[in-house]
Amino acid sequence: MIRHAPHSRASLAERDAKDPLGAFRDEFILPQGVIYLDGNSLGAMPKAAMARSQELVTQEWGQDLITSWNRHGWFDLPTRLGDKLARLIGAQEGEVLVTDSTGINLYKLLSMALDLRPGRKVILMEGSNFPTDNYMAQGLARQLGRGYEVRFAERDDMAAQITPEVAVVALTQVHYKTGVMFDMEALTQMAHKAGALICWDLCHSAGALPVDLGAANADFAVGCSYKFLNGGPGAPAFLYVAKCHQGKAMQPLSGWWSHAAPFAFERDYRPADDIHQILSGTQPILSLAVMECGLDMMLRADMNAIRQKSMALGDIFIGLMEALCQQYGFTLASSKNANERGSQVSFTHAQGYAIMQALIDLGVIGDFRAPDILRFGLTPLYTRYVDMWDAVQAIKTVMDQNLWQDPRYARRAQVT
Amino acid sequence: MIRHAPHSRASLAERDAKDPLGAFRDEFILPQGVIYLDGNSLGAMPKAAMARSQELVTQEWGQDLITSWNRHGWFDLPTRLGDKLARLIGAQEGEVLVTDSTGINLYKLLSMALDLRPGRKVILMEGSNFPTDNYMAQGLARQLGRGYEVRFAERDDMAAQITPEVAVVALTQVHYKTGVMFDMEALTQMAHKAGALICWDLCHSAGALPVDLGAANADFAVGCSYKFLNGGPGAPAFLYVAKCHQGKAMQPLSGWWSHAAPFAFERDYRPADDIHQILSGTQPILSLAVMECGLDMMLRADMNAIRQKSMALGDIFIGLMEALCQQYGFTLASSKNANERGSQVSFTHAQGYAIMQALIDLGVIGDFRAPDILRFGLTPLYTRYVDMWDAVQAIKTVMDQNLWQDPRYARRAQVT
Repeated sequence: MIRHAPHSRASLAERDAKDPLGAFRDEFILPQGVIYLDGNSLGAMPKAAMARSQELVTQEWGQDLITSWNRHGWFDLPTRLGDKLARLIGAQEGEVLVTDSTGINLYKLLSMALDLRPGRKVILMEGSNFPTDNYMAQGLARQLGRGYEVRFAERDDMAAQITPEVAVVALTQVHYKTGVMFDMEALTQMAHKAGALICWDLCHSAGALPVDLGAANADFAVGCSYKFLNGGPGAPAFLYVAKCHQGKAMQPLSGWWSHAAPFAFERDYRPADDIHQILSGTQPILSLAVMECGLDMMLRADMNAIRQKSMALGDIFIGLMEALCQQYGFTLASSKNANERGSQVSFTHAQGYAIMQALIDLGVIGDFRAPDILRFGLTPLYTRYVDMWDAVQAIKTVMDQNLWQDPRYARRAQVT
Repeated sequence: MIRHAPHSRASLAERDAKDPLGAFRDEFILPQGVIYLDGNSLGAMPKAAMARSQELVTQEWGQDLITSWNRHGWFDLPTRLGDKLARLIGAQEGEVLVTDSTGINLYKLLSMALDLRPGRKVILMEGSNFPTDNYMAQGLARQLGRGYEVRFAERDDMAAQITPEVAVVALTQVHYKTGVMFDMEALTQMAHKAGALICWDLCHSAGALPVDLGAANADFAVGCSYKFLNGGPGAPAFLYVAKCHQGKAMQPLSGWWSHAAPFAFERDYRPADDIHQILSGTQPILSLAVMECGLDMMLRADMNAIRQKSMALGDIFIGLMEALCQQYGFTLASSKNANERGSQVSFTHAQGYAIMQALIDLGVIGDFRAPDILRFGLTPLYTRYVDMWDAVQAIKTVMDQNLWQDPRYARRAQVT
């Protein structure tokens, strides 16, 4: 049975024409003939990144060489970009750094959290979280020994598991597979009530929806910049340490950038007493500096408009899938309630891997997450309403014509 | 007293004309009117890096987006570049990674070394080493507690300090200030004889002189790629783990790239049993991929020719300084014996900071290291013999004309 579609392509095109965020699409490079629904994995390229990378290489590295560390502010990039990013996640100046990778930043912050809660030995996490966070926490617990452990709970049981042994709760706000969201304020309150600290992973939140770490009274946060912040492939990640925790605990990856006087070349380590203490060593400047292009664009956009459009895109996508693809065995893995959903829509399907490969060959790029999840990222700065229509039509074509049965598509995923 | 100069500019120009490495200079961008003697801090830009960075941004990120992780081999960059770099440092395929930063790599390897020597609690290091290594080791010891400690010794006393409590000796082969070199083979033997492991920091060695980790039977090594390897500002660092130690000890920064099956998204950590285990998370692709340009060029050069020219450049520089600048109070801080010197020449001078600033304004770029060191890096792929003449003439001008007394130069260093 094919139900009547709840939208027409024309009505969606009309909506695009009136979209207050519509002009941002022109600030991105997007390949011809592609509907890119994977900005939740690697965000598209801001046009500004081309000029910026050329300037960085040709002028700053090529001509100004070592003097660029001061002249072009390379040394201050982690704090300067951190202060910009702070505005997107409800943090204050001096609470955010752009540096290193999400996992390494998590390691630093969890270590600090354990120091701040002596006697408590448990890091509480979601078992089905994107594994790298869990693996890093397990690495830390193993490193510390002495009874430290990572305890896994699932979403429905999380609140009950915040017991007096828990030193820190480390949760990803938006689930990487399903897009389902934790209530940041509620969980933070629960953690604090139990005497624990909390660390939020904002990988699928920053730039995707309004985040207010300050209002939630969050202790720590980490996240990446290459998804919704369009920072470029593997661009350095960010971290947040609430002012009240700065200078109170050491982090173990204490390289020279975290020293109270990095250029004094003292023999012994002496920590900075502010956010600089969470730095480690020299940063990959090309990747770090280019990351600013996506960030600057995001700061010009209205985050509430982004959220409204993101929810609308998801509702339309789900509605069209129900109307046009109901008979093909897709099961919605995201919440139907937009308020409980990040900026993605996911479906499960037993043939998910092959279907996604066939879809990519039709020019609709989403991604697959084992064992059976098809993910479609919604990035309001460059995703159009008509893209929802065209993407669902392509899915319908893949299923109607059994394109997914092509033997080429019968292999395992290898894409991040 | 001004002695007769041991060279003339003309004789040095003749030597440049016959230099078998001379053609490499054309493969670099070098600013007009500058003699760049700071390649031991930030290497000059290979021309190839311009095209590569443009291709990376415009095509790989801009057009091919998420598919580039496989299509353009982003995911394999750490191992693929590591295998190339291995050829420069006497390592085998599968023993080297290009990833993260020097300090973070050191943290991983020292942690493994301590695991491999249970019961021994001491990390032995050189007190006057570039501080970030020492600070990272102190961070690790603090993190572990239980009596772990970093013990500092100075160079002359190092061998005597390799006692039975020492788990791992961590030394930088070429000293960052003076350029003086440790005997890698001898120290490695001493460490092993005492039952300890050794980790070599090759920041000032890789690409500067022949290194043979295999012949020295070294256990571990780290190093950066933005100095003599011309990898770009803050380009990811490298690490080496001898095959015999792989799969025997865990490293704590165990992100998903180090998992035995990273794309299976298993809940619990399960280490890869090869060099992949030393990876952590997603890498900064722009910085990492551009790093290959300098590496490829270095692989085409004859490392013995590089070493011969480097030693000759140093001898000429020292000879000219003695002849032309003896009366100005410079003291040679490097060894006069080229065999004991890395690819730099350093002098101490009480007014070192101001002198270096004045010199930079004359177009001769070296750097200053507190409290009184002037460093001049010699990079045979783009440093000419005549540059030694012109640099010493500029130093003489700064001193003859008291240019260093300009009040502009009376401030503290801030350059890495």
